[in-house]
Amino acid sequence: MSLRMAMVGGGPGSFIGPVHRMAAELDGRIWLVAGVFSRDPAKNAQAAAAWGVAPDRVYPDHHAMIAAERGRADGVQLVSVVTPNHMHFDVSAAALRGGLHVISDKPATLNLAQAEELASIVAASGKRYGLTYTYTGYPMVREAREIVARGDLGAVRKVVVEYSQGWLSKPLEREADNKQASWRADPAQSGVGGCIGDIGVHAFNIAEFVTGRRVERMCADVATVVPGRPLDDDCNVLLRFDNGARGVLIASQISAGARNGLTLSVYGEKGGLTWSHEDPNVLTLDWLDGPSQVLHAGSGYLSPAARAVTRLPTGHPEGFIEAFANIYRDFADAIEGGEGALVPDIAEGVRGMAFVERAVAASRDDAGWVTLEGDAR
Amino acid sequence: MSLRMAMVGGGPGSFIGPVHRMAAELDGRIWLVAGVFSRDPAKNAQAAAAWGVAPDRVYPDHHAMIAAERGRADGVQLVSVVTPNHMHFDVSAAALRGGLHVISDKPATLNLAQAEELASIVAASGKRYGLTYTYTGYPMVREAREIVARGDLGAVRKVVVEYSQGWLSKPLEREADNKQASWRADPAQSGVGGCIGDIGVHAFNIAEFVTGRRVERMCADVATVVPGRPLDDDCNVLLRFDNGARGVLIASQISAGARNGLTLSVYGEKGGLTWSHEDPNVLTLDWLDGPSQVLHAGSGYLSPAARAVTRLPTGHPEGFIEAFANIYRDFADAIEGGEGALVPDIAEGVRGMAFVERAVAASRDDAGWVTLEGDAR
Amino acid sequence: MSLRMAMVGGGPGSFIGPVHRMAAELDGRIWLVAGVFSRDPAKNAQAAAAWGVAPDRVYPDHHAMIAAERGRADGVQLVSVVTPNHMHFDVSAAALRGGLHVISDKPATLNLAQAEELASIVAASGKRYGLTYTYTGYPMVREAREIVARGDLGAVRKVVVEYSQGWLSKPLEREADNKQASWRADPAQSGVGGCIGDIGVHAFNIAEFVTGRRVERMCADVATVVPGRPLDDDCNVLLRFDNGARGVLIASQISAGARNGLTLSVYGEKGGLTWSHEDPNVLTLDWLDGPSQVLHAGSGYLSPAARAVTRLPTGHPEGFIEAFANIYRDFADAIEGGEGALVPDIAEGVRGMAFVERAVAASRDDAGWVTLEGDAR
Amino acid sequence: MSLRMAMVGGGPGSFIGPVHRMAAELDGRIWLVAGVFSRDPAKNAQAAAAWGVAPDRVYPDHHAMIAAERGRADGVQLVSVVTPNHMHFDVSAAALRGGLHVISDKPATLNLAQAEELASIVAASGKRYGLTYTYTGYPMVREAREIVARGDLGAVRKVVVEYSQGWLSKPLEREADNKQASWRADPAQSGVGGCIGDIGVHAFNIAEFVTGRRVERMCADVATVVPGRPLDDDCNVLLRFDNGARGVLIASQISAGARNGLTLSVYGEKGGLTWSHEDPNVLTLDWLDGPSQVLHAGSGYLSPAARAVTRLPTGHPEGFIEAFANIYRDFADAIEGGEGALVPDIAEGVRGMAFVERAVAASRDDAGWVTLEGDAR
Repeated sequence: MSLRMAMVGGGPGSFIGPVHRMAAELDGRIWLVAGVFSRDPAKNAQAAAAWGVAPDRVYPDHHAMIAAERGRADGVQLVSVVTPNHMHFDVSAAALRGGLHVISDKPATLNLAQAEELASIVAASGKRYGLTYTYTGYPMVREAREIVARGDLGAVRKVVVEYSQGWLSKPLEREADNKQASWRADPAQSGVGGCIGDIGVHAFNIAEFVTGRRVERMCADVATVVPGRPLDDDCNVLLRFDNGARGVLIASQISAGARNGLTLSVYGEKGGLTWSHEDPNVLTLDWLDGPSQVLHAGSGYLSPAARAVTRLPTGHPEGFIEAFANIYRDFADAIEGGEGALVPDIAEGVRGMAFVERAVAASRDDAGWVTLEGDAR
Repeated sequence: MSLRMAMVGGGPGSFIGPVHRMAAELDGRIWLVAGVFSRDPAKNAQAAAAWGVAPDRVYPDHHAMIAAERGRADGVQLVSVVTPNHMHFDVSAAALRGGLHVISDKPATLNLAQAEELASIVAASGKRYGLTYTYTGYPMVREAREIVARGDLGAVRKVVVEYSQGWLSKPLEREADNKQASWRADPAQSGVGGCIGDIGVHAFNIAEFVTGRRVERMCADVATVVPGRPLDDDCNVLLRFDNGARGVLIASQISAGARNGLTLSVYGEKGGLTWSHEDPNVLTLDWLDGPSQVLHAGSGYLSPAARAVTRLPTGHPEGFIEAFANIYRDFADAIEGGEGALVPDIAEGVRGMAFVERAVAASRDDAGWVTLEGDAR
Repeated sequence: MSLRMAMVGGGPGSFIGPVHRMAAELDGRIWLVAGVFSRDPAKNAQAAAAWGVAPDRVYPDHHAMIAAERGRADGVQLVSVVTPNHMHFDVSAAALRGGLHVISDKPATLNLAQAEELASIVAASGKRYGLTYTYTGYPMVREAREIVARGDLGAVRKVVVEYSQGWLSKPLEREADNKQASWRADPAQSGVGGCIGDIGVHAFNIAEFVTGRRVERMCADVATVVPGRPLDDDCNVLLRFDNGARGVLIASQISAGARNGLTLSVYGEKGGLTWSHEDPNVLTLDWLDGPSQVLHAGSGYLSPAARAVTRLPTGHPEGFIEAFANIYRDFADAIEGGEGALVPDIAEGVRGMAFVERAVAASRDDAGWVTLEGDAR
Repeated sequence: MSLRMAMVGGGPGSFIGPVHRMAAELDGRIWLVAGVFSRDPAKNAQAAAAWGVAPDRVYPDHHAMIAAERGRADGVQLVSVVTPNHMHFDVSAAALRGGLHVISDKPATLNLAQAEELASIVAASGKRYGLTYTYTGYPMVREAREIVARGDLGAVRKVVVEYSQGWLSKPLEREADNKQASWRADPAQSGVGGCIGDIGVHAFNIAEFVTGRRVERMCADVATVVPGRPLDDDCNVLLRFDNGARGVLIASQISAGARNGLTLSVYGEKGGLTWSHEDPNVLTLDWLDGPSQVLHAGSGYLSPAARAVTRLPTGHPEGFIEAFANIYRDFADAIEGGEGALVPDIAEGVRGMAFVERAVAASRDDAGWVTLEGDAR
């Protein structure tokens, strides 16, 4: 029983579109059969041809697509939204209202108000909405979450999460034809957050996902380091979680030489864990009393949650595409009536937007510690 | 322009079948549309359903399949052979003779004589034959090969290659329902080589692939460590390459605790390189004079050969499935008239079988140093 | 030409006293010949016997020692101060006034006022004063400093320094006979800083040492996590350097499972460097364009500053004692008229105390961003 | 109660002499008070001055030294032998016959016959003889030995030991003034083994030390890679231990780019361990069933054998000098009547020489598998 999917966005020049396509189809649960891959008709057709989408299911815009697919017996059941941020809301809302499930690249929307509105639309639609916070799809991130939830570490006391990239160390957005850099530096397409919205939210989300705790307060230093850049490219945030645990969140796109280094450490009363995206198939546990442990993806001793999301025996590396595919597979489960509880939903989308907007505003106003939600300090 | 593929083998319980399926389809170049997945009709149908293969293209055996597909306008163009070793020859030969390209899991055949015969059949067929020595598909293995070929290290002097697993430390082949262990320990299905044929050939192949040199002589210690096991489970081989370079090849399936640790070090006159499957997206270069270098997959500074086989920016891990997919993609190129020069071919298959047979025989006879080919010492 | 040294503190039960002794004597430049190792006469004598100090040069207190040694032709030339913090000022001041050079464990004094007074005393004494910020003695830390100073990274933009320990995750200070924990948790002996004064200053110092930049402003979250502990055991500080670079400093003694993990990353316009105390003999450089580099201690390609402070060829690990010994050797050079410019001096001591006092106060008052020196925000 | 030591060899230009001096004195148990540091009187005096040896205890040769020191009430009790290999026998024999304990750098002697003769002299002398196989002094190597001895891994099945250096990739021995390279490449000073005698024996010794097993048979490929070099610079040896376990020993000084990479892996029935000199303060255990473990030096959970030989809390790296010092400290214990059982003795010296001579001869004669002792195959 495979599911039929349409994609909006993701045409030639996109980094994330092809990843969504490979991830969606990897397990044979979902097939891409329709789409609006580009506003440029030639590019639209080019993407369709490369991906085996029939020409009659390539559409000029998402409204046309939703209308046409609804009319087909073999119409799509879900839409994958991989446009720049500013279109996320419109496409997602239209699809949901058109009776389709939506799986969207993050962030959910351009801003917090849109996210809250989208939450209402999701609730009214009766359809599933999923957000591809990719890193939550890694088996060892899920193992980490289980370990914390089981209480192996005791109460969480300290969280350090760092997501450092260096590729925006120069003003690439001013170069012609750098699509990746240019839309990210454009507030109209990205929203109020630059680095914080692009990768800071990933760090924020994984910290909450693994600890099962919620950030309540924060003190943010959101900065623009490269002169002339309209949005932030470096942010450092002190965190306070709902159980009193302290945290530090570091995200940067001007850490020259850094590739895509997301590292999370969680310390409890009895021990700590560390996961790093540079070496995603291991999880390190350090204990107050006793040897450190290194857990390897694919091992029989892992939790069911982790074992469910590897495809290969231990020692056979799986990576980013497979992590992404895990989210798609979970989403397929959810659509087909399973739990799918681990797919980030619109509530996570709202939290992510709140984090971005509040941090940017608080840092701009030199406001010190602020709450994530509401105005109380 | 996608290619249509059939698979033989790979049904429920197979490890490598699903990997071939995911790898073949990952890039949208090849689609699985027909197959003989199992001799058990129920399992055959089950695999087909899971992978979207139409019921009318699921066949009871490969002869029926080849005949039927030849008669279709949309018949398959290539066959993926993922059965146990003893069927590799028959299926491959039949497919080639039926005018189909063949991509086969390793080893090419059950023994050297079959491999040599298959080489003749390939030559006569005018069709492409590829062998999935997976590790040659990793971007950093290809970078390593380029570095040696460019002469950056100077002449190769020493090669150390180790492929250690521990999963056969106990006699799993005597457990009911351990399909992975049982066929590997059965000479009728595996051939004369156990560990050496299963993973030793990978080590042998990657050493030759990266260095561009050929093993000429060897001195082998091929052993059965777990009592009662019919085939070897540990082998250690001293090597001499055609340029006089020395080497050591270690392969084991009784190195308890080892997962799937394939590591290759190549030392030349000016420096050395090391690649390890545990951390496949980096390649380390150590120099006689100067800092060590760590090259990261996906980086712009890599050779075209390495850059061509990543799908993601640096810092986004790719793994085993992607490496496998690179071999399929190259094979698709080869079929469509491109170079595809890096797909291991039947000549490599013959060498691999010669390595296994000669090493096993020489070790059994306590023969000391022997040549890989022929009888001269 | 070896120098004669006395030690104050460091008797049985001390961790750092024996380290100072080994470090001072390692290179044959300095010999321990006198001391006040403990207020307990038996322990005092025991330490002396273990270290080959003649009984007539073991003194009941530092005043007696300074007086007696001044009267000897072979009297000591320098004093090593390894007492708990609250005695640092008295011993250091008395020794300097007695015409002796002083090398002191950090922090320089119990509080900022004392540090400033000690600075005056040093200036008036004409003697050398050195502070053992151990980590500045590591060869690869010195190499890092040279790399930044040479401009290889371009202007520094971002600094992340983390010093995490877990050994105070439980209230060890309430256990009998835990000398290491008890004095550290006692404000009378430690000063106003717990974790921040014990290890936070190391992180602060190494960040300034390597970057050559000065912290101007900070926003601190200094916390007591273990209930009932009188001093802080966890601190997280946002930093702003004098060139506008941003930084994050994390120090903790309740990061359960962490051993002694000091890691520094410095990012400039062109690349970044990372040094970690867990693997002290390497320095990693990551570049915006080009392969990463790993520099190994003891290599001929390193700067003279780094090469001067290894004793062994590359590949032979040196550690904490050797790093400590480098500071002693530099101090011997300084005494004997050489440059010794890299020995942290009383000015560093004053900065460290200012960092601790200002961070503790600002965090307590929820003051947000504060300057390190003076009151201006 | 410290011990008084003389040194023979180790003057200016020596690498290992200063290491022995630092190691011997590190713990305050042994003091260097006499010596013959060089045949060159000026260098002899220079070393003495640097190390605080009184001029009247610097001697022109070891015979004069032994005679004179025997006549002093405060004469030395032990002699450290750090000359090139060809003098080890003479100096050791003379010292033992002169009633002094001997601690010698490896190898014990120039050849096997001398080693056997020295064993008789040791036995007749009633004095202690120790051999500084440095790597046995590392805490985590001792922990590894305990783990195997306790049976945690089950019976040992496989051993892989590799000691790779690259510094002799060029014919440095032909350069003027390269004392380190020139004596090593001179059979008159080194004996029949080049690389195998210099570092191969370390690999051999650590394999036997950790496993507690004895090599019975071997098949060696001992080679000279750099043209014109009189001794071997690369060797690869297949091993068979007395319990049937298989092994591979790799030693090289032409592995360009390698620094001093000694790595040992031991696999038993239930798991394996790996220790690497590049990261000496950890020991990794991999298990057939269960997470990997990483043990850290200085931890409270380690065996008494490992805890006894660290000086610092966990997380504070110790290195080569400290490992060396552990052997000296054990030797001091042995002299003073303690067990000191872990100091390698002359029996290990004899085994090491047998390994070198038999391997070199067997490889030269293309003899295949040979026994380590005697002639039986």
